[in-house]
Amino acid sequence: MAENKAKNTEKAKNNKFKNNNQKKNYSKKSTAKTGSKAQTASNKSTAAKKTKKPVKPLHIIPLGGLGEIGKNITVYEYDGDMFLIDCGMSFPDEEMPGIDIVIPDFSFIEKNADKIKGLVLTHGHEDHIGAIPYLFKVCKMPVYGTSLTLGLVEGKLKEHHLLDLAELTVIKPGDKIKLGKFGLEFIHVNHSIPDAIAVAVETPAGVVVQTGDFKIDTTPIDGEVIDLARFAELGKNGVLALLSDSTNAERPGYTQSERIVGDSFSNLFKKAENKRILVATFSSNIHRIQQIIDEAVRCGRKVALSGRSMQNVVQVASELGYLNVPEGVLIDIDMIKRYMPEQLVIITTGSQGEPMSALRRMAFGDHRKVEISSRDFIIISATPIPGNEKLVTKVINELLKLGAQVVYEKMYDVHVSGHACQEELKIMLELIKPKFFIPVHGEQKHLSKHASLASAVGVNEKNILIASIGNVIELCNSYMKVTETVPAGSVLVDGFGVGDVGNVVLRDRKHLAEDGIIVAAFAVDPVTNEVVSGPELISRGFVYVKESEQLFFEARECACDIIEKCYLSNIRDWNTVKARVRDGLSKFLYEQTGRSPMILPVILEV
Amino acid sequence: MAENKAKNTEKAKNNKFKNNNQKKNYSKKSTAKTGSKAQTASNKSTAAKKTKKPVKPLHIIPLGGLGEIGKNITVYEYDGDMFLIDCGMSFPDEEMPGIDIVIPDFSFIEKNADKIKGLVLTHGHEDHIGAIPYLFKVCKMPVYGTSLTLGLVEGKLKEHHLLDLAELTVIKPGDKIKLGKFGLEFIHVNHSIPDAIAVAVETPAGVVVQTGDFKIDTTPIDGEVIDLARFAELGKNGVLALLSDSTNAERPGYTQSERIVGDSFSNLFKKAENKRILVATFSSNIHRIQQIIDEAVRCGRKVALSGRSMQNVVQVASELGYLNVPEGVLIDIDMIKRYMPEQLVIITTGSQGEPMSALRRMAFGDHRKVEISSRDFIIISATPIPGNEKLVTKVINELLKLGAQVVYEKMYDVHVSGHACQEELKIMLELIKPKFFIPVHGEQKHLSKHASLASAVGVNEKNILIASIGNVIELCNSYMKVTETVPAGSVLVDGFGVGDVGNVVLRDRKHLAEDGIIVAAFAVDPVTNEVVSGPELISRGFVYVKESEQLFFEARECACDIIEKCYLSNIRDWNTVKARVRDGLSKFLYEQTGRSPMILPVILEV
Repeated sequence: MAENKAKNTEKAKNNKFKNNNQKKNYSKKSTAKTGSKAQTASNKSTAAKKTKKPVKPLHIIPLGGLGEIGKNITVYEYDGDMFLIDCGMSFPDEEMPGIDIVIPDFSFIEKNADKIKGLVLTHGHEDHIGAIPYLFKVCKMPVYGTSLTLGLVEGKLKEHHLLDLAELTVIKPGDKIKLGKFGLEFIHVNHSIPDAIAVAVETPAGVVVQTGDFKIDTTPIDGEVIDLARFAELGKNGVLALLSDSTNAERPGYTQSERIVGDSFSNLFKKAENKRILVATFSSNIHRIQQIIDEAVRCGRKVALSGRSMQNVVQVASELGYLNVPEGVLIDIDMIKRYMPEQLVIITTGSQGEPMSALRRMAFGDHRKVEISSRDFIIISATPIPGNEKLVTKVINELLKLGAQVVYEKMYDVHVSGHACQEELKIMLELIKPKFFIPVHGEQKHLSKHASLASAVGVNEKNILIASIGNVIELCNSYMKVTETVPAGSVLVDGFGVGDVGNVVLRDRKHLAEDGIIVAAFAVDPVTNEVVSGPELISRGFVYVKESEQLFFEARECACDIIEKCYLSNIRDWNTVKARVRDGLSKFLYEQTGRSPMILPVILEV
Repeated sequence: MAENKAKNTEKAKNNKFKNNNQKKNYSKKSTAKTGSKAQTASNKSTAAKKTKKPVKPLHIIPLGGLGEIGKNITVYEYDGDMFLIDCGMSFPDEEMPGIDIVIPDFSFIEKNADKIKGLVLTHGHEDHIGAIPYLFKVCKMPVYGTSLTLGLVEGKLKEHHLLDLAELTVIKPGDKIKLGKFGLEFIHVNHSIPDAIAVAVETPAGVVVQTGDFKIDTTPIDGEVIDLARFAELGKNGVLALLSDSTNAERPGYTQSERIVGDSFSNLFKKAENKRILVATFSSNIHRIQQIIDEAVRCGRKVALSGRSMQNVVQVASELGYLNVPEGVLIDIDMIKRYMPEQLVIITTGSQGEPMSALRRMAFGDHRKVEISSRDFIIISATPIPGNEKLVTKVINELLKLGAQVVYEKMYDVHVSGHACQEELKIMLELIKPKFFIPVHGEQKHLSKHASLASAVGVNEKNILIASIGNVIELCNSYMKVTETVPAGSVLVDGFGVGDVGNVVLRDRKHLAEDGIIVAAFAVDPVTNEVVSGPELISRGFVYVKESEQLFFEARECACDIIEKCYLSNIRDWNTVKARVRDGLSKFLYEQTGRSPMILPVILEV
């Protein structure tokens, strides 16, 4: 078996080179290194087998993606060797004002850096690859992924000036490689980005299958149906545990095929008649973009792209051969004025109503190159991600006000999900027939629902674990249990700062947002302890000051009184004086206004 | 006709007294006043008719509820007389941090206070009655509504210490009254609160029907089906214009009957077996509460109420005879410990995940009287209002983590909407057959969709108007047009302050929330212009200061340099110095951190 794997690694290496030749060159240096590492690991493993040690348990440590949507990252540990599956980011919620993105807490990985053999990526979505640049800042490791996934990672690393340090190895579905004591096999799955894979992890303790994000599309755009046969084969040979995508575990039935969206485009493009067509969608949904382009070609329309990520992804996907755009179809967005509306399709970002996105700027008349009018037929080819409903609605309302026709409703089939619904999840469970089941990628409600599905198809309830991030899940043939919990959580990225915004700063931001701030500044003579200037009250975000002069006059009086009382009571500790000013002013202002602004006393000694 | 109306007013008056006897006493004083006013108006109208003046056009001025969800309020004007339909509030969106509620701009009403004959309420939801206390602070007027609606208004006015000033007159479906030159008729409709009405407004220019919020429920809980026959009759006699509820204009088909929820409760209560049952729903949905109580009685369970508004509404509704609770079924929430889980149903607020609501507090282990465990079976009998999805999800996730079983999915039929879907809207249009159509109660997308429905059933497209708030819509038999636009918009209520938070304050709050604030305070000698203390830098909501000492040290250096440069360049104007400090520090901090906190320079002269 170990020999087999060595051979497979060799095969993977060869495949990679083949891939490189076909599509994209990754540095030879990194390739060679990985190859030899894998070889060494394989030898070690063979040696280990010869001494016939008792089988050790496997450890799975999800550091993100459970009890939350996003920042998916899982650590596998066996006998001192570790590797990671995915390294994603998530978006801040309303409890995190000012935060740009959220990444996993890497402290466990940092601590175990010497044990980690590599990072395997299931696909190129941000919630699976978005935190890689931040991971690399604490711990470098070889990265394995399919060609498109690595193409997107490359762009990301370039932005962070980290590409030189990266060792990226292209793998393909069907490939098998070794990473330390782990044998890994990659299995093709369908998703809303091409080239997505599941990973089968082989260890002496048994085989674990992690699906990544997946759906079952029997008529996918690229013709490559999820490799159900391989999942069935693995299931037949016996799978210790399954970690499966819970995103759509609440939805009954099946997710529709991506192809249905193409049919809708076909109908809607006809309906658009002599109008200009705009389609907003996710830039990573390359099959969707392909379908838009195909339909544009059929209708004799040119295609322009709007939005930075749309342009980037289309370029990467075209270079790597994932997008097929006939010569002369794509035109620069600057050229659209040379064409009549009925000769144009614009594919744009902003399907989630994101504040700075192209579609949003168009809706608010803020886009330099595209002006919306009643000659526009706009298709929002996406559903709002939970939390974005109002953002999307705002954009739709504004587009309608400009006179455009907007198609966004579910009934028009302008979008399908990339995740498996209940029936598909049950098929996966049925094929894999895992002894143990760990639902992943979802909030508590998704995990709970997925757990009941597993139970419904016959997985023993005792063998289903709804885990939390940081849990060290120990697995062997006879049991699955959480043995300990390691540090895991959210690290907030704000500007260049990673992790320097914590609970105190967020609490202050929320307080400031609610009722604003009042600074009460005064100067004191440190010898006599007398106030020599102020208090001056300056407010921001509290009330419209010009209409509240009386209030500020009285508040200043209140502060003066407090300071004088402190002086008369012989209180000379400035922190005590500050606290009294804060409390006194706060009380006064609450009584007057029903609000509690932050009070910030400032004392200067002169 | 005028005589008829006078008679009808008399009848309405009698009805009111009857109502009063049956259900609730409203002060005789207010009743008498209204009666005489109505009479006077009626006489005037008769006189007007005798002189046979040419028919004047009618004006409809929506001051809220168009291009938005909530704060519904419409002014009707005919020949110098005015009255209002509804006076609602709305909830702040994410662009309004710290704001409690949003009310309409009443300046147009204030300006025309002497012309306004009264306020007619269609039903007792906050988006139709919530701004009445604020209206009363600028302009008092008689209020007309059904018994339950006025019962809820009364509670609201009591809270604001305005009840003594109020003149509330109970009307019933079928009643006809006169208000100035207007004849008003009230027509029963179904909605998610009992006692909802539509209003037919009769003027010499023609009849206008305003539906209020409605649905067609052919099996309502109180047996009172929407009075379709009366709508048909009005339609047959000729209706000038229809203003109809657009809330669900995007949804195809029909809204299900409230009764279906009862069937679901019946099934779910059985499924709950020996668990304690909690049902979260809207406190105003009295028919829903009735169904929960009925099912509890059938199962031999006691009912406890949690949440202030739930307790208030149940009390008002019981007193007025809208709720039928058998003796001994309701128990105080303090008593629940005396019962076994299988003997209890708790009806609670918080179905929208609202931050301070009872269910939310239970979910986060913060409720003093109800502790959630695996012995709880929780039904969320509501759908999240757009924008609340994440709040609701958070609550569900926490309840699941505590081990409770939670039923919230659409497929269980635990909630139905109170608004008409497309087929019902088309029925209303078909019955009324209005010459002109103005969709109301909805964002642009709802109004647009409702307009297309009207067009689909044969209303001339030229006779459909998607209006904006503040538009003065002039109507007569031959045309409908917008003649001018009067002040209308959102007034923000924050604490006791009404309208004192405007765009500047909100912009500051958002800035503060994004990146926090840095105060740069220094003291200067006004004679020598030398800095005698500081600059001191104090930050809130920016970074974790203890880990950023070096940054603050350098920022202080930066501020010192700027101040010194100003001094050396002979700049003695403190505003200029402040501006330079602000710009310089802002630039420095952005370069260092990628963030733009608010910089607030403070200069004290000593």
